[in-house]
Amino acid sequence: MALDPTKHKDWEIAEEAETRMLTIYQVAEKLGLTKEELLPQGHYIGKIDFQAVLKRLKDKPNGKYIDVTAITPTPLGEGKSTSSMGLVQGLGKRGKNVCAAIRQPSGGPTMNIKGSAAGGGLAQCIPLTPFSLGFTGDINAIMNAHNLAMVALTSRLQHERNYDDEQLERLSGMKRIDIDPTRVEMGFIIDFCCQALRNIIIGIDGVNGKSDGFMMKSKFGIAVSSEVMAILSVSRDLKDMRERMGKIVVAYTKKGKPVTTEDLEVAGAMTAWMVDALNPSLMQTLEGQPVIVHAGPFANIAIGQSSIIADRVGLKLADYHVTESGFGADIGFEKFWNIKCRYSGLIPDCAVVVATIRALKCHGGAPVPVPGKPMPVEYSTENVEWVAKGCANLIHHINTVRKAGISPVVCINAFYTDTDAEIAKVRELAEAAGAKVALSRHWEHGGEGALEFADAVIEACEEKTEFKLLYELDEPIKDRIEKIAKEVYGADGVDYSAAANTAIERIQKDPELSKLALCMVKTHLSLSDNPTLKGVPKGWRLSIREVLTYGGAGFIVPVAGAISLMPGTSSNPAFKRVDVDVETGKVKGVF
Amino acid sequence: MALDPTKHKDWEIAEEAETRMLTIYQVAEKLGLTKEELLPQGHYIGKIDFQAVLKRLKDKPNGKYIDVTAITPTPLGEGKSTSSMGLVQGLGKRGKNVCAAIRQPSGGPTMNIKGSAAGGGLAQCIPLTPFSLGFTGDINAIMNAHNLAMVALTSRLQHERNYDDEQLERLSGMKRIDIDPTRVEMGFIIDFCCQALRNIIIGIDGVNGKSDGFMMKSKFGIAVSSEVMAILSVSRDLKDMRERMGKIVVAYTKKGKPVTTEDLEVAGAMTAWMVDALNPSLMQTLEGQPVIVHAGPFANIAIGQSSIIADRVGLKLADYHVTESGFGADIGFEKFWNIKCRYSGLIPDCAVVVATIRALKCHGGAPVPVPGKPMPVEYSTENVEWVAKGCANLIHHINTVRKAGISPVVCINAFYTDTDAEIAKVRELAEAAGAKVALSRHWEHGGEGALEFADAVIEACEEKTEFKLLYELDEPIKDRIEKIAKEVYGADGVDYSAAANTAIERIQKDPELSKLALCMVKTHLSLSDNPTLKGVPKGWRLSIREVLTYGGAGFIVPVAGAISLMPGTSSNPAFKRVDVDVETGKVKGVF
Repeated sequence: MALDPTKHKDWEIAEEAETRMLTIYQVAEKLGLTKEELLPQGHYIGKIDFQAVLKRLKDKPNGKYIDVTAITPTPLGEGKSTSSMGLVQGLGKRGKNVCAAIRQPSGGPTMNIKGSAAGGGLAQCIPLTPFSLGFTGDINAIMNAHNLAMVALTSRLQHERNYDDEQLERLSGMKRIDIDPTRVEMGFIIDFCCQALRNIIIGIDGVNGKSDGFMMKSKFGIAVSSEVMAILSVSRDLKDMRERMGKIVVAYTKKGKPVTTEDLEVAGAMTAWMVDALNPSLMQTLEGQPVIVHAGPFANIAIGQSSIIADRVGLKLADYHVTESGFGADIGFEKFWNIKCRYSGLIPDCAVVVATIRALKCHGGAPVPVPGKPMPVEYSTENVEWVAKGCANLIHHINTVRKAGISPVVCINAFYTDTDAEIAKVRELAEAAGAKVALSRHWEHGGEGALEFADAVIEACEEKTEFKLLYELDEPIKDRIEKIAKEVYGADGVDYSAAANTAIERIQKDPELSKLALCMVKTHLSLSDNPTLKGVPKGWRLSIREVLTYGGAGFIVPVAGAISLMPGTSSNPAFKRVDVDVETGKVKGVF
Repeated sequence: MALDPTKHKDWEIAEEAETRMLTIYQVAEKLGLTKEELLPQGHYIGKIDFQAVLKRLKDKPNGKYIDVTAITPTPLGEGKSTSSMGLVQGLGKRGKNVCAAIRQPSGGPTMNIKGSAAGGGLAQCIPLTPFSLGFTGDINAIMNAHNLAMVALTSRLQHERNYDDEQLERLSGMKRIDIDPTRVEMGFIIDFCCQALRNIIIGIDGVNGKSDGFMMKSKFGIAVSSEVMAILSVSRDLKDMRERMGKIVVAYTKKGKPVTTEDLEVAGAMTAWMVDALNPSLMQTLEGQPVIVHAGPFANIAIGQSSIIADRVGLKLADYHVTESGFGADIGFEKFWNIKCRYSGLIPDCAVVVATIRALKCHGGAPVPVPGKPMPVEYSTENVEWVAKGCANLIHHINTVRKAGISPVVCINAFYTDTDAEIAKVRELAEAAGAKVALSRHWEHGGEGALEFADAVIEACEEKTEFKLLYELDEPIKDRIEKIAKEVYGADGVDYSAAANTAIERIQKDPELSKLALCMVKTHLSLSDNPTLKGVPKGWRLSIREVLTYGGAGFIVPVAGAISLMPGTSSNPAFKRVDVDVETGKVKGVF
């Protein structure tokens, strides 16, 4: 019997449940994996040899495919991971053969704002702490693969400066690339929030003079924003990953030609560092259902989806496979829809939009909650009017899901302060907008509390879908950005900086790059590009500051507003509260 | 039957042997590990729950403790890992219950100069490629733990600049530390050779102004040179690691007081990232003997020893435990002797000095071989005179081992171009210097070729040892540096830069810091601090450029000569030859 979530913290619940969790061999057995297909990582975590699974089950039809997205969250998050776990547990209670695919948490937020990204209350995945602290090492592999490209690039810049053409070719076995140091696109990565590395100068002369690198501006992004992470998300298999890994544009030559990782002869080695990471990881819910973990979060500054491979495996192994898209439907679901499903060819059967009364109140006018601060009193007293007003945001996201041609299910992720009148209002408005609505008490009661939710999803999965993409890849880039801005974000139009215009012109002329999907970079805290605007902002235009290309992942990346690829660490970061019990080896404070 | 090493490359031999290697469960059984004590990482690699093993076997007497060191190597290395594997295989052939502890390779050299650090020919450990590419993730854990301290430091510098005392204390819950930005000791780390990150400026104003960090000089070192790696090497258990992790000095306050990781409230979280890494990893030789892998290489710029924990575990589990010290006895063995054994309390039974005819010729006057270039012809023709002259270097190292009071065994690591006369000369001179001498053909014949070697070691282990340390911790720092310089390196004396003098004065005044062991940073390519001087350089003085303190690892670190903590990537790096077979997932070119 699990601990009572109204009396215990998430980590206490997880820790208690871990004393009686299934071994990873038992979890694998539930999924029908063979002994060879499970690559154990200790006794309670594993990796799945996906190539073997897909080969063995290539003729088996896929299970039902369910995406979990949300309304525009408050800075505290609205329990999307919790609801994904709740749904899986609920489907499990209904006797379904079920599987989830979630994303590995980034060390940045874990050490800065919050701890776990494993759900909460009685809807979590375990073991909790390893999951939050590096897990099976995929993000580290990404860090190494990505930074190796920067090693190749920066050392090459040094050697091209130090040697004449003849020396260079003789010593390196490569002709001069003639990299333009002012047009280096790629930076380094690290998986923490480290604002001091956002803008840096590297290659400063030290004791060794000409051997101390090439001096230039550079930058670090957070690991999960890396194009290598994006490649992990969208690769269909190892062959696909290898090809994509060679197409990363790291810089341009002085004549304006792209310099790729393949040009630097580093793409093979980068892939070598990633071979193990391509196998998805495996853990379990508090109630023992299998949970696949693969790729990373941050749908605001990255694709932020669990991987195509994880979904391919889950759909073969389970009758119901639940996958998760980051943040609100404007960014997480939009990328699931127009990037992930486009590249995988997989068609979802339904999409869940998670909402909380808290977030609806916030969209309706209540003061925005601040992480680490006490909740404003407005959130513990009934206010149906705010909830009703805030439902505009929910309805906007429901409509986004409907534009994709699939059935929306609204999950009201219940909290004990919610009142019946508030919940009734959400039901009324969301149903009127064409969604199924389920109240779910998985946080408090686990799978038993998520039966209504599970039933709504089962029902929605039986409905006919007419899945359609928002745009085609041969439409002009600006037309496509405008479609997303207007139809998904609700903007009046789009404005471009001079740099963005130049980049789009250049990309549009390239027959290959111009046909890549769009991966928008935009705040998750508003439908607009201004994080302070709640509800459904009206009368605004989307500002595109710059446009990057991820030739390997296959994305054109328009960056909206002032969002950065490297978050900052706050003055009172979460790492201060993390420590280790030296007798038991248990990590404390990651929650 | 293994492939013929005269006809096949190392990686081909390994790949063939991997088709019939033991599962990690079988390797663990050989060591007598319980099912719970083995934490499998896939089917062929594992980690050992060392706390459980040490608890279970606390009353069992230790096995014999053998250190493998070498003469001053050429830049190609003299097969120390190969000889360690050969010795283990030879002891295995003699029916001994044997175990090895080696170090995890660094991604830097793997991707730059050479591939594998797993031995060679028929004396290797497998699986080869995972070992070379991140293995079980310990170095990544070190990278995260170390860089998290830098996140704490750099963000704190920003917040201390941005807020007044009252704001700072209210927002962060910590009083002003008043860090002196000109006296930051610590840098970031990355596990590649990236000269462009050797000297950098961070925290440059970007879009976010005051939130973009604190501008200052900084640096990246290679991961294995990190103090966190050193802590992994010398920690006796988790409690010890936690204490050490809080004592890392990251900077000084404006009043000159040390600022530690504990002061930044980040030491607990750093330890949390390291909990799994504290469990040593397990793999096997080509002939199925257990090989423990723990901590990292680079005895030139780091401690470069496998860990105390690995040795504690190996000595409990096996009757003969072979551990390896990096590079020549001047640096690798000296640190084993005066740091590792001092901190572990373990007493070695014998030390092997590996020599090759190639390296002896080089010390005797033959042209220095260059990695990636063809071997000079001098190495394929007999020259007893060069060998005899070069033996001065070998004898110097034999004497170093004898100063520690333990029995030296010289292993002549045979190569097919060696002649009988050359080998006889080494035997004659080394025996005259008081060493046992064994010719070993493990490279060509595996364990069968290492029987003479194994027998010599078994015999040496039966001799009485009178182990004694070179210096006591309460001797003045300069006296101790001088002892190492004169007695181990053969210098006439020591010269200090102004910066080194200032640092020593400061450290000498600190009752705690002044009593730490010395961890010298010096080139491995010469007994002196000048890598071009071969043999036994005479009439030179050791130059100490700077002196660092590793308060957590417990080291005073005098840096000799122009050696850098961040190596550079060459113009024709090894990563160019690495790729992946996308059908099988096998990595090619790491050798």
